[in-house]
Amino acid sequence: MDQEYDNLIELYQEIILPSSISSVLYWDMETNKLPKMGVNYRSRQLGYLTKQQQKIWTSDKLRETLRKVENTNLNDFQKRNFNLIKRAYEVKNNLSENLLSEITKQSALTNEKWKVAKKSNDIGVVVDDFEKLFNLQKKYATEISKIREIKDPFSALIDYRDEGLNGVNVSKYFNEIKPFLIKTVKKKKDNYDNRFNNIKKLDLNKEEQKRITHLISDLFEYRYSGKASRGNIDEVEHPLTITCGPDDVRITVKFGNVFNVISSTNHELGHAIHKLNKNEKWNNLPVNNFGSPTQAEMISRYTENKIGKSFAFNDWMLSNFKNRFSSKFDEITSSEYNDFINLISPSTSRMNADEVSYGLHIIIRFEIERLLFNEKIMIKEVSQIWNEKYEKYLGVQVGNDGEGVLQDLHWFNTYWGYFHGYFMGDLIGSQIHYTMENELQDWESDLRTGDLSKLLKWQSKKIYSLGASYPILDHLVRLTGENLNVKYHKKYLENKLKL
Amino acid sequence: MDQEYDNLIELYQEIILPSSISSVLYWDMETNKLPKMGVNYRSRQLGYLTKQQQKIWTSDKLRETLRKVENTNLNDFQKRNFNLIKRAYEVKNNLSENLLSEITKQSALTNEKWKVAKKSNDIGVVVDDFEKLFNLQKKYATEISKIREIKDPFSALIDYRDEGLNGVNVSKYFNEIKPFLIKTVKKKKDNYDNRFNNIKKLDLNKEEQKRITHLISDLFEYRYSGKASRGNIDEVEHPLTITCGPDDVRITVKFGNVFNVISSTNHELGHAIHKLNKNEKWNNLPVNNFGSPTQAEMISRYTENKIGKSFAFNDWMLSNFKNRFSSKFDEITSSEYNDFINLISPSTSRMNADEVSYGLHIIIRFEIERLLFNEKIMIKEVSQIWNEKYEKYLGVQVGNDGEGVLQDLHWFNTYWGYFHGYFMGDLIGSQIHYTMENELQDWESDLRTGDLSKLLKWQSKKIYSLGASYPILDHLVRLTGENLNVKYHKKYLENKLKL
Repeated sequence: MDQEYDNLIELYQEIILPSSISSVLYWDMETNKLPKMGVNYRSRQLGYLTKQQQKIWTSDKLRETLRKVENTNLNDFQKRNFNLIKRAYEVKNNLSENLLSEITKQSALTNEKWKVAKKSNDIGVVVDDFEKLFNLQKKYATEISKIREIKDPFSALIDYRDEGLNGVNVSKYFNEIKPFLIKTVKKKKDNYDNRFNNIKKLDLNKEEQKRITHLISDLFEYRYSGKASRGNIDEVEHPLTITCGPDDVRITVKFGNVFNVISSTNHELGHAIHKLNKNEKWNNLPVNNFGSPTQAEMISRYTENKIGKSFAFNDWMLSNFKNRFSSKFDEITSSEYNDFINLISPSTSRMNADEVSYGLHIIIRFEIERLLFNEKIMIKEVSQIWNEKYEKYLGVQVGNDGEGVLQDLHWFNTYWGYFHGYFMGDLIGSQIHYTMENELQDWESDLRTGDLSKLLKWQSKKIYSLGASYPILDHLVRLTGENLNVKYHKKYLENKLKL
Repeated sequence: MDQEYDNLIELYQEIILPSSISSVLYWDMETNKLPKMGVNYRSRQLGYLTKQQQKIWTSDKLRETLRKVENTNLNDFQKRNFNLIKRAYEVKNNLSENLLSEITKQSALTNEKWKVAKKSNDIGVVVDDFEKLFNLQKKYATEISKIREIKDPFSALIDYRDEGLNGVNVSKYFNEIKPFLIKTVKKKKDNYDNRFNNIKKLDLNKEEQKRITHLISDLFEYRYSGKASRGNIDEVEHPLTITCGPDDVRITVKFGNVFNVISSTNHELGHAIHKLNKNEKWNNLPVNNFGSPTQAEMISRYTENKIGKSFAFNDWMLSNFKNRFSSKFDEITSSEYNDFINLISPSTSRMNADEVSYGLHIIIRFEIERLLFNEKIMIKEVSQIWNEKYEKYLGVQVGNDGEGVLQDLHWFNTYWGYFHGYFMGDLIGSQIHYTMENELQDWESDLRTGDLSKLLKWQSKKIYSLGASYPILDHLVRLTGENLNVKYHKKYLENKLKL
């Protein structure tokens, strides 16, 4: 008798529908459709939708339905969906409302101050608000740790977002690979300035950059226009993917430097093909809507790097440049172009980091987060520690806070316990990549001819279509036959960089 | 003690907020941001928002609050707001739910069939569904006539939408002016084909047409970009204005023939400046959200024609053409250009009609609606009667149903009892225009220099800022000191056309 389970799933629609509507409103804001003076009313609209969801989360009806479902016989799949809802329900119901509204307010304040601080390259401007926001986040993590009965608040925060991960296992993996990354950065660091002058000169106008974006979208079978379209490409200040519905996943691009456009388009397309290739029968279910940051970023970084910076992709891209654009490329060989794309060139910027430096960027942030949550350091020390770690791990001098601790909005906007996902994603992705290469040996030759269909099918079957059926580390075991092992990421980098 | 009244107004926000969110979703669809495959989920999102509103309309809480407020002492302004809610409440609560969902379904079907019918220029394709939809609309009007205790269903339908208007008074005004319109069309009808060849040649590309749209938007003080923006201009198939919030009113344009662009931009800007110049203190109140079709179309047609086809506007526009674009305009005099814009040239198309023919287009539709609702004719006769009336009133042969009865979607999409508003708006607008010209004698010289500020201020004070404080015909009396009299429209046309 599944009536109660069906009731639960029906009730769940009242949570995901307003959320998909909020996404349309966010997309409208991010892509600058919203008139500037419309911001106030927009925040009321968003507040209304959040309130509708919160009403369901805290309703007697949901509580009752969960209780009834818990006492029925569920199969494993139903149980997984039930558990995903239950997990969120417990936190949403037991957090003090006051804390949430304080966080929202303080986050808005800190956000605004961050903008000023970033302009003046000085964390001093925002440090008091930053501290207030962090203290609220710590309270939030502490409440979650009580609700979920996980002792360490930082671990509780990570686990709530990213099932199965915590401060301890993430540290373990990061510590295992850190020395290798530091060594490799030191060894390979070189800027080859003159060698790549011809490539660097490539200067496409916006229309041409759009054509590049379309070309890559076609490669990844992302339909952004026409009768069968399930996506849309628009311009923004900070690229991101917005899911407005199961058949409406929109990516955004910031046009400018064409190599950044290629890499961020690949990243966002990774998110988009993930969302669009889920098992469509599950669209209304938690398995298709709950997901971990690590899973999401694993897929986008996989697409950006393992595929989008592979020799084969670079080959394909270069041949397209040669065909379409400029005679400047006539002399460039594919190995030169590949070397340029995969240059190890540590800098203060995470977004533009090479694949080796990238891990260290994330490790620095994760280490600082852990120190803060465990009260080993104070907010006012963060800037100094940040700079010291950059010097130590990457050999890079941070010129000012703007290019240092202020470079991303995340921390100033409640994204704590999130950064680890980008690099845990890299580690997991490398292990998956190894399995994939064993099973699909001709993926690179296919890609050189602009055909990714087999690879996409493989990933859809093995990853995308399973949604949140398993916590990410368990999913990895099912896929590769063994627990996460950082040796695969080492091996991947060694092969790529001919170490 | 206003607590109960405040409660009512607060409850009312739960009705207008989701409606403003739906507007964003519609804007997203109309401007083709929504991927084609996303349509199904979009209809679920819209359904969700409608359901949230309907929940409030039919809630015990609203019923109770209305009852309590009715028994308190309200001032006139509060009473007006109360009455506007009450009026809608009575209909929303008493209509049979079944009927509404049948109408929605049949409307979607008829809509689709209309597209096919229009392509094949044959009403036969849609006639059965058209009849079903009309019968449902008639039931709807009949239910409203019972709820609102207005005998004639057609009148009840009009009055519910357009407070104070009904089949009888609209007929009266239309019949008073019809002979004059027929006579004038006959007298002035001429196509001057050769005389205007130079002007007709003007062929601006899309970017240039956009600049024209911006130029006109600036004239009307419509801010579509930048820090103080409260609007946005985008492209669509069928121009319309969409209100996504009190500081977020977006207009849309279909680029193509530059003279159509000018005229439809003026029309949509009329809607936009109306919405944006309401009394902002009343933004959360019914007086600013309920409005009659006649008031809305009065203002947009006023802007399109009384201002946007005035000699002064044409002068200003022509001088801008001469400055900005083509040497082709060197020889054109302002009186020639004005004659071209105001050419009397009856045709089958309402959208592109001149100011005299326009009234007859609306009268034909209104007469057919009234005949149908009063069961004097049948749906299957509509096409033939349409064509006969076009021959009789406008001297125009309708080539096929596509350019005849199928030209607009309105009737095939439940817009019955709506068309009258466009021409009632013209009649009312002419009377207002006379008063305005008495009070602001230099509006035309101001406009010639591109300054409409005094006129806009006058209209804001006298019309926009009053919202729905009064039914449109009462508002007219307050503004002009007398009841609606069609002599003003006659006079306006006589002056303009030098009859």
